[in-house]
Amino acid sequence: MLKVAVVGATGYTGRELVQILACHPKVRLFCLTSESSAGLRFDQVYPQFRSLVELPLEKLTEVEALAESDFIFSALPHGLSLEMVPALLATGRPVVDLSGDFRLKDGELYRQWYGYNHDCRELLAASTYGLPEFNREAIGKSRFIANPGCYPTSVLLPLGPLLREGVIDPDEIVIDAKSGVSGAGRQAKLPFHFPECAENFKAYKVAEHQHTPEIEQELAAICNRPLRVAFTAHLVPMVRGILSTIYLRAVSGTGEQDLWAVYDRHFAGEPFIRLLRPPELPETKFVSGSNFCDITFRLDRRTGRLIVISVIDNLVKGAAGQAVQNMNIMQGWPEETGLKGVMPDEVS
Amino acid sequence: MLKVAVVGATGYTGRELVQILACHPKVRLFCLTSESSAGLRFDQVYPQFRSLVELPLEKLTEVEALAESDFIFSALPHGLSLEMVPALLATGRPVVDLSGDFRLKDGELYRQWYGYNHDCRELLAASTYGLPEFNREAIGKSRFIANPGCYPTSVLLPLGPLLREGVIDPDEIVIDAKSGVSGAGRQAKLPFHFPECAENFKAYKVAEHQHTPEIEQELAAICNRPLRVAFTAHLVPMVRGILSTIYLRAVSGTGEQDLWAVYDRHFAGEPFIRLLRPPELPETKFVSGSNFCDITFRLDRRTGRLIVISVIDNLVKGAAGQAVQNMNIMQGWPEETGLKGVMPDEVS
Amino acid sequence: MLKVAVVGATGYTGRELVQILACHPKVRLFCLTSESSAGLRFDQVYPQFRSLVELPLEKLTEVEALAESDFIFSALPHGLSLEMVPALLATGRPVVDLSGDFRLKDGELYRQWYGYNHDCRELLAASTYGLPEFNREAIGKSRFIANPGCYPTSVLLPLGPLLREGVIDPDEIVIDAKSGVSGAGRQAKLPFHFPECAENFKAYKVAEHQHTPEIEQELAAICNRPLRVAFTAHLVPMVRGILSTIYLRAVSGTGEQDLWAVYDRHFAGEPFIRLLRPPELPETKFVSGSNFCDITFRLDRRTGRLIVISVIDNLVKGAAGQAVQNMNIMQGWPEETGLKGVMPDEVS
Amino acid sequence: MLKVAVVGATGYTGRELVQILACHPKVRLFCLTSESSAGLRFDQVYPQFRSLVELPLEKLTEVEALAESDFIFSALPHGLSLEMVPALLATGRPVVDLSGDFRLKDGELYRQWYGYNHDCRELLAASTYGLPEFNREAIGKSRFIANPGCYPTSVLLPLGPLLREGVIDPDEIVIDAKSGVSGAGRQAKLPFHFPECAENFKAYKVAEHQHTPEIEQELAAICNRPLRVAFTAHLVPMVRGILSTIYLRAVSGTGEQDLWAVYDRHFAGEPFIRLLRPPELPETKFVSGSNFCDITFRLDRRTGRLIVISVIDNLVKGAAGQAVQNMNIMQGWPEETGLKGVMPDEVS
Repeated sequence: MLKVAVVGATGYTGRELVQILACHPKVRLFCLTSESSAGLRFDQVYPQFRSLVELPLEKLTEVEALAESDFIFSALPHGLSLEMVPALLATGRPVVDLSGDFRLKDGELYRQWYGYNHDCRELLAASTYGLPEFNREAIGKSRFIANPGCYPTSVLLPLGPLLREGVIDPDEIVIDAKSGVSGAGRQAKLPFHFPECAENFKAYKVAEHQHTPEIEQELAAICNRPLRVAFTAHLVPMVRGILSTIYLRAVSGTGEQDLWAVYDRHFAGEPFIRLLRPPELPETKFVSGSNFCDITFRLDRRTGRLIVISVIDNLVKGAAGQAVQNMNIMQGWPEETGLKGVMPDEVS
Repeated sequence: MLKVAVVGATGYTGRELVQILACHPKVRLFCLTSESSAGLRFDQVYPQFRSLVELPLEKLTEVEALAESDFIFSALPHGLSLEMVPALLATGRPVVDLSGDFRLKDGELYRQWYGYNHDCRELLAASTYGLPEFNREAIGKSRFIANPGCYPTSVLLPLGPLLREGVIDPDEIVIDAKSGVSGAGRQAKLPFHFPECAENFKAYKVAEHQHTPEIEQELAAICNRPLRVAFTAHLVPMVRGILSTIYLRAVSGTGEQDLWAVYDRHFAGEPFIRLLRPPELPETKFVSGSNFCDITFRLDRRTGRLIVISVIDNLVKGAAGQAVQNMNIMQGWPEETGLKGVMPDEVS
Repeated sequence: MLKVAVVGATGYTGRELVQILACHPKVRLFCLTSESSAGLRFDQVYPQFRSLVELPLEKLTEVEALAESDFIFSALPHGLSLEMVPALLATGRPVVDLSGDFRLKDGELYRQWYGYNHDCRELLAASTYGLPEFNREAIGKSRFIANPGCYPTSVLLPLGPLLREGVIDPDEIVIDAKSGVSGAGRQAKLPFHFPECAENFKAYKVAEHQHTPEIEQELAAICNRPLRVAFTAHLVPMVRGILSTIYLRAVSGTGEQDLWAVYDRHFAGEPFIRLLRPPELPETKFVSGSNFCDITFRLDRRTGRLIVISVIDNLVKGAAGQAVQNMNIMQGWPEETGLKGVMPDEVS
Repeated sequence: MLKVAVVGATGYTGRELVQILACHPKVRLFCLTSESSAGLRFDQVYPQFRSLVELPLEKLTEVEALAESDFIFSALPHGLSLEMVPALLATGRPVVDLSGDFRLKDGELYRQWYGYNHDCRELLAASTYGLPEFNREAIGKSRFIANPGCYPTSVLLPLGPLLREGVIDPDEIVIDAKSGVSGAGRQAKLPFHFPECAENFKAYKVAEHQHTPEIEQELAAICNRPLRVAFTAHLVPMVRGILSTIYLRAVSGTGEQDLWAVYDRHFAGEPFIRLLRPPELPETKFVSGSNFCDITFRLDRRTGRLIVISVIDNLVKGAAGQAVQNMNIMQGWPEETGLKGVMPDEVS
């Protein structure tokens, strides 16, 4: 059994990691850290886990078990991750970091989009962007994964094949994305206070969201040229789920059959991609609690627009599930290990 | 006091009409019809109204009070409205119809978008599209108003001034709209069953929504040329509210100041339009229960995109409130009469 | 026009006061204070009110307009109210205080239930408990009202007549009460963070809720003997509303007709009490946004239990609406003034 | 691998059975029936299950695979279950029926509480009430299980030990229970239409709920004397979960330590019961998606009341999870098999 550590275990992505890893047949939860709840047990913070996961929570700087762990997940908030991950890497253990702090290759971008000066730029070059469907081989050889953001995952998976095969115009990409509130993390703040948030819908960080350069970087890598996307994030009064509606222009002469062929070819054998044929349309509930990304599109003849729609669970395929998928690849295990048991969790 | 009738009073838009009209200082609720609940009183269907509105509900075909009413609102579902409105008009009373059955000038479009053959095409020519901010004068002279759809209201208000002044490219309009569940009406169906709908988000009728030709018709009228828009509707797990995110291309040389100038000029003195300056962004809760449309935009220099965002309450400015606004204009009353008292209703 | 001040205008009860008072035909909002948002305008904190209420927010200690106000509502949190209300009273203006700090006549109880030492005990004797249905005359003569708590209002209204007429056993009262989240106030805390609170239901402060002695004090006053009640509060994942289910023992020989007779007699002419006859049952939505309390009961012959159910909007009849009702009585105005226009606000 | 059939697989309890059984290491989903969706595949009704469970749905009367199944779960609605279960039993296979049709031993009660005449009374004697914590031995020998109702499960588990040891007064039991909307089943009806149900809370079937005699029958069996309980059900605007607040009188001389001792003794070694010590209080989210029942109590010295609180997931421990627990016992497998992997599913 692989002994795994989860650094930052009491945030929502940390908690989701614990849940998935507790059921994973090849690992043992070995060490959990929490800056805010050190001294308590995990199940005292999340009573759901009583009698299931009763490990102590320790401060990262005081934990000794970390050095004895075989594999480290870091689920710290961005900014803090930048400070702590170098020490995690120094243990020599493989590290999957779920923050945004090591995803952008161009360190300058952090000043503009994250509002801080990135002072570990050498690590930006060292990290591997952990999107298995496009990067499986590199992930398999890497010791340091920058796990993709939730919004980027929901965007890169449906756009990647289209860009790679050149069937859409890279200069005409509009992404309208909607997320449940767990994406905002576990810290209580007024915009996420129940009476403010329930029965409400809004856009936020318009033209300023820090996932924009991440999307652009990875799309550019896929089509070998720079590009810019319009990206808008919205907050949905629900706990989990992201749906992205993406407006594109197919290149002249590309029909529906061509587009399905592109998807079928690229995603054949992918364990966590499901293509939905018309008249089916994805709903966030279809992937709630699972590591799937469901994708469909409509080619609108009237307007010439191609409309692509994807859904993921922001905490699973958009965070913890994808992190475990990356670990499976790094360890040479079947990619679904411990993830197909993460079944859809909602009544409907 | 003007004696008003509400035909189809027990649907959600009918109910909202009753609520607003019950507080309107210049009218008296005189006659309510309901096909599904005839024989009951209004407050038996909506116990909220006990001791407030206890009028009987009658079948439209059996009601005698209709002929004695001074003004008729019709809130029947589309299809049924087509059948019933001619008789309402035959009473000689002014009629505001809240359905989509008389909004499209080109009768052929009904077959394609609504799935029926429109057999009262002469009435299409007779109706006035009731969007006061662009059509106030014609409304004042009309006896038959086709009250705008909820999504079109949320789109036409922010787009109208931009198109009229030629500051955006009419061929590059992408509308991503999101609505609360009351927009689907009061009939119980599986997609709106609480366990299916709560904690879920989805797109629906992609590239097929019947509000698309209504938006195109009215935008075309504003800019004097045909155009087509990409329009996608989504369902938000909340009761009320619509937010539309609209992606545009400003024409070369148009800056933020120019765009604000357009809006300020067009909406100066408008009682129900509120412009939000950055950093403010609209939220559906800001207009819940009120007749306001809140609008803002961001001009994204990186991508050259103009992103416009609007919010309305789908049942007020998107339906009943706008219908009453139209009545006020038709009667020559101050336009806010009975509508400024419709205050924001949510705790937050 | 009466010039009114709202002290603590940006909490949820303060905000609700502003909304109701802004539409009240006999008052003018004159002065708003906020410790947390001083320097902003009210509509900057609540953008719902843009173009409706744009008054500045001032610190209570710095506000000069207070002395020129004719009537003061205090909506400060408990504890702070204790500190500030003496100064408000010193202005000589009538004061309605919405906190719990002046409701309990026995000052000792504050230590046990509120966790502080009450050092203004002389003001406890000076305050009048503002439940109009049982205390109208005293309210009319008072200059200082302790406005009832939300839970107590939902309990005292249905229990009062039964106790006063001696038709139930005062030693067998079990109250199971459920409230929406706005009752917890506007401060962001983890238990009210959307992802924690949505899709969740729980009891809280079991056998320790500070509204318990308030209920006991007022029931004791009604039946002229001390008594104790079992009271449990629960949190419902919704914004507004309280429903109380109350389990009682009717005294021997009391039948359904007797009980209805008690209610009919006591509540005849009450503008804000609605009695629901079987098979009707109250729902919180029926009173959302209104000042009504809806009440029904079932006498269960199998068990001999009497089950009484009541609903109110915690922010209206449970706070701001009742405060305005008290002002109307103090001013000698018709009791519904400005409150019947507070119509039911939900679509359904 | 045991070949299992799920009859009525597309209702919410059927769906939950499919989810649990699909991950159960000792069974194979072999046959699914659905009257409403026969002809479709399971994943067409629940797209969550695409690529996971793609079995065809067949009409019960036409299915041949049933006879080849080794074990049958029936999740039909009550009434229909009465008609169909005799044929299921005639196959000779063990049957777990999740409806209420075979739970009451006194056939007369069906007329009063379920509104129909029970014409298979001999099967009432043949069925075993499937509450493992009180009936494990009989379940192990049974071929026909009447799986407990959701509310009764939440009530019997916390009350059973107290009654069995005689530490509470059996004539003073008040149960105030609250359930999420999935408990109402999957059929779309107006009370469960999202706009009616969201932001609303209500009691229903007051003094008439059909789970009342089931609770009384089983409590009577535990304490060997007849008794009656006051039971009120409420609807919470959330999908899953039941919380029951139970008001009791402890017998004279019974203190907190005695009560904890009773619980500790009775539930020692129980895999799915978790006792929460003060200050902890159960929340429905703590058991969402799991087979646990969490229990606590407070002995209120002021009033002499004992307040017991329990939570379950109505679809798991209240239905499908308990049914699988019963199968495990009947098959002689460890009781947690396939159920401890059903981990808490909510983000928080």
